[in-house]
Amino acid sequence: MTNTAIHPATDVSLSLAHFVQNCCWDDIPEVVRHEAKRSLLNYFSTALSACFDPTIERAARVYGRFSVGPQATVIGRGQRLDMLTAAALNTMAANVFDFDDTHIPTIIHPTAPVAPAVFAWSETQRTSGIELLLGFILGVEAECRIGNAVSPGHYARGWHITSTCGVFGSALATGKLLGLSAQQLVWALGSASAQASGLVETLGTMSKSVSMGNAARNGMLSAFLAQQDFDGPAQPLEGVRGFLNVTAETPDCQSIVSDLGVRWEILNNTYKPFPCGVVLNPVIEACLGLSQHPELMQQGLEAVERIELIGHPLLRQRTDRPHVTTGRESQVSAQHAVAVSLTRGKAGLAEFSDQAVSDTSLRALGAKVAFVDDASFAVEAATVKLHLRGGQRLEVAIDIARGARGKPLSDQDIENKVRTLCEYGGSGCNPEPLIDAVWSMDRAADVGQLMQCVVGSAKP
Amino acid sequence: MTNTAIHPATDVSLSLAHFVQNCCWDDIPEVVRHEAKRSLLNYFSTALSACFDPTIERAARVYGRFSVGPQATVIGRGQRLDMLTAAALNTMAANVFDFDDTHIPTIIHPTAPVAPAVFAWSETQRTSGIELLLGFILGVEAECRIGNAVSPGHYARGWHITSTCGVFGSALATGKLLGLSAQQLVWALGSASAQASGLVETLGTMSKSVSMGNAARNGMLSAFLAQQDFDGPAQPLEGVRGFLNVTAETPDCQSIVSDLGVRWEILNNTYKPFPCGVVLNPVIEACLGLSQHPELMQQGLEAVERIELIGHPLLRQRTDRPHVTTGRESQVSAQHAVAVSLTRGKAGLAEFSDQAVSDTSLRALGAKVAFVDDASFAVEAATVKLHLRGGQRLEVAIDIARGARGKPLSDQDIENKVRTLCEYGGSGCNPEPLIDAVWSMDRAADVGQLMQCVVGSAKP
Repeated sequence: MTNTAIHPATDVSLSLAHFVQNCCWDDIPEVVRHEAKRSLLNYFSTALSACFDPTIERAARVYGRFSVGPQATVIGRGQRLDMLTAAALNTMAANVFDFDDTHIPTIIHPTAPVAPAVFAWSETQRTSGIELLLGFILGVEAECRIGNAVSPGHYARGWHITSTCGVFGSALATGKLLGLSAQQLVWALGSASAQASGLVETLGTMSKSVSMGNAARNGMLSAFLAQQDFDGPAQPLEGVRGFLNVTAETPDCQSIVSDLGVRWEILNNTYKPFPCGVVLNPVIEACLGLSQHPELMQQGLEAVERIELIGHPLLRQRTDRPHVTTGRESQVSAQHAVAVSLTRGKAGLAEFSDQAVSDTSLRALGAKVAFVDDASFAVEAATVKLHLRGGQRLEVAIDIARGARGKPLSDQDIENKVRTLCEYGGSGCNPEPLIDAVWSMDRAADVGQLMQCVVGSAKP
Repeated sequence: MTNTAIHPATDVSLSLAHFVQNCCWDDIPEVVRHEAKRSLLNYFSTALSACFDPTIERAARVYGRFSVGPQATVIGRGQRLDMLTAAALNTMAANVFDFDDTHIPTIIHPTAPVAPAVFAWSETQRTSGIELLLGFILGVEAECRIGNAVSPGHYARGWHITSTCGVFGSALATGKLLGLSAQQLVWALGSASAQASGLVETLGTMSKSVSMGNAARNGMLSAFLAQQDFDGPAQPLEGVRGFLNVTAETPDCQSIVSDLGVRWEILNNTYKPFPCGVVLNPVIEACLGLSQHPELMQQGLEAVERIELIGHPLLRQRTDRPHVTTGRESQVSAQHAVAVSLTRGKAGLAEFSDQAVSDTSLRALGAKVAFVDDASFAVEAATVKLHLRGGQRLEVAIDIARGARGKPLSDQDIENKVRTLCEYGGSGCNPEPLIDAVWSMDRAADVGQLMQCVVGSAKP
């Protein structure tokens, strides 16, 4: 899989392209294959949850005007649009709640820009499950390695890293399915580099979804252009004015090509149990436990006088938001997360909606939260202490929150996430055939048929 | 045109949006209106010259697959595609040779990302010439002011400034035609900010044209999304993680809103007489003069022993390229420019084509070029001295090259550029009705009809 005429030290783009061109299914370890399926199941869960979200509704209204024909499924909406448009809208839906997967070293959401591209393509051209999985795995690999090379400065500067790096993942995944040559794959990276965009400033607004949709759409477009020998620079990534140098202060170009085929970035992928900033995971888990505590159930929440959150300082820094007014804000508010988890014993999308936030009793309970910084805590750990009237204290300590790398969601957890979110989204899809189809997709001769499971129906 | 509730010092995006929303035709000085028409004529000239260039051919093959219907004219190709696609391809054609206009403070090519958007829209919805010109002028104003705010660091860093800033111009120009509110225009800027992309690394390759086409296309898309109340951040430009701070080290945010409606950036627009880097303008002009010198015509070019180019050091730094192999490279080669201008007495696109470069006699003549740096020269000045056998010297000094801000192309020059480039491009269009239509467009009730002049015919 190496080529002696290439110098990985200088030819980063070309080396990456050669790897993508030459890598085959037998090169992919079983654990990587399985993680890819877990990522895809999680992808379908979040895309199904948001298919009628206002962001998607408004985008579909405009994008739909420019769709050339019913080539590919827009998940859950009973709608087929051209493959570029379907890919864009599915990426938006998968990511709009930030409930999709997280590549821990970079905080990239790796699946949303890549999976919609390869599935949309598979609906237009007979593609085996193995071909699709291979393209998907390689796209994720490229996207996350490019993200590693520009981290942490890139995101800190203000680049929405999933959007900016996602376009490369989509370009190479699509290019792999098209059977492009290494030179063409470099050109695809070139046209992708010309389209890499997305700003942190847009987070919390609908316009974030535009750069997300573009990542999938424009990556595909880059591959189609390369297929026509539409050329680009020789070093779109590592060139003096290439993507890495322009968007990062001190990019680690080598990390893109070191141990290719040995180290697999998808093994750093994680899945959220709750639709919140990951630092809240241990807090919510503790509160859900406390909500079932016999003492609390007996005395009621009125008995709670004070709620101590003990955790890494990042917990306070990122989530001390007592006055939230939208569901979107509540996803990063410790006060809301604590109050709603204790009150409802649940922490799903319904608990972080605009409607949930409008419940003023949660505001009163949240006001009792007090942060205690303790830098000895890992970010995936937290302790929640309830001080009750009469001096009693209830306490739950979480060492590693569910969903963290050290305690990944089980396959069963992810299946249940599909079931829950599928119901939440209102598409009317049956999650069971979808779950079966994803687990068995490496045996599918025509994987595009899997999308039949997520057609859904137009909103009444 | 000011709003007392807005603070231009902090609300840059909103102030700009209010200006665009409120500005009307009567606010536009006659000199600005006329410069807009000159810019548009120049735009049509370069778009017509490149309509069958390989970059456009290959892009049209892919983009055409995703065009929903014949809404708008693709210049010169006898083809109509949907308005987003037509706008993208026309932007690419106008700019592919870098022969389009140049906004001097920023080196933005201002017309290419904006004009195709407003013309494409005008073919789908009856639009008066005044409405189109107003939208165009405001789009250019916004794009160039945003460019001013990030210059010079932005381009130096590696951002292709026409692409990155052009998307904002297209968004606001389209938004003005749609009659968007100020809030919606801010949202359009938000979705544009999420799509701002383009790298200097791609120059000289086809992939540069992707970000150019996107600037027009995605600006339009941003306006259409905003029309559906697809929201975005409050401060897409000036926000802490907004476009200005992320893509420039020390942006001058205030320059975007200072003297709005008083100072007009389109008056800093210039038009190239030759398809070359602007530092070559005085050199080529001098060589064209020398090519007609009676002494040289009598003795022939064999008599030339040495060619001295005396000019600002930038001339040497940017154009000392003796060994060029492509037409593209020859556009920034002093050796080629000198040799071809002296030999042919012309310096049009045909003189900077791959075919022209393959003429080895030009290489021999170009080898006689010697640069003499003189920092006392302005960049728009140069002296060319021919040393002939027998000691004779012929010399032409150019103080201000034609096409520079101090010596703009006349209206007649621009008309002739349209005629020449129209013929070069091979579309079969007649330039005369086009020229008349542009000069009189402020009297057009349905300006979309102007595009009938540039339909052309499919390449045989």
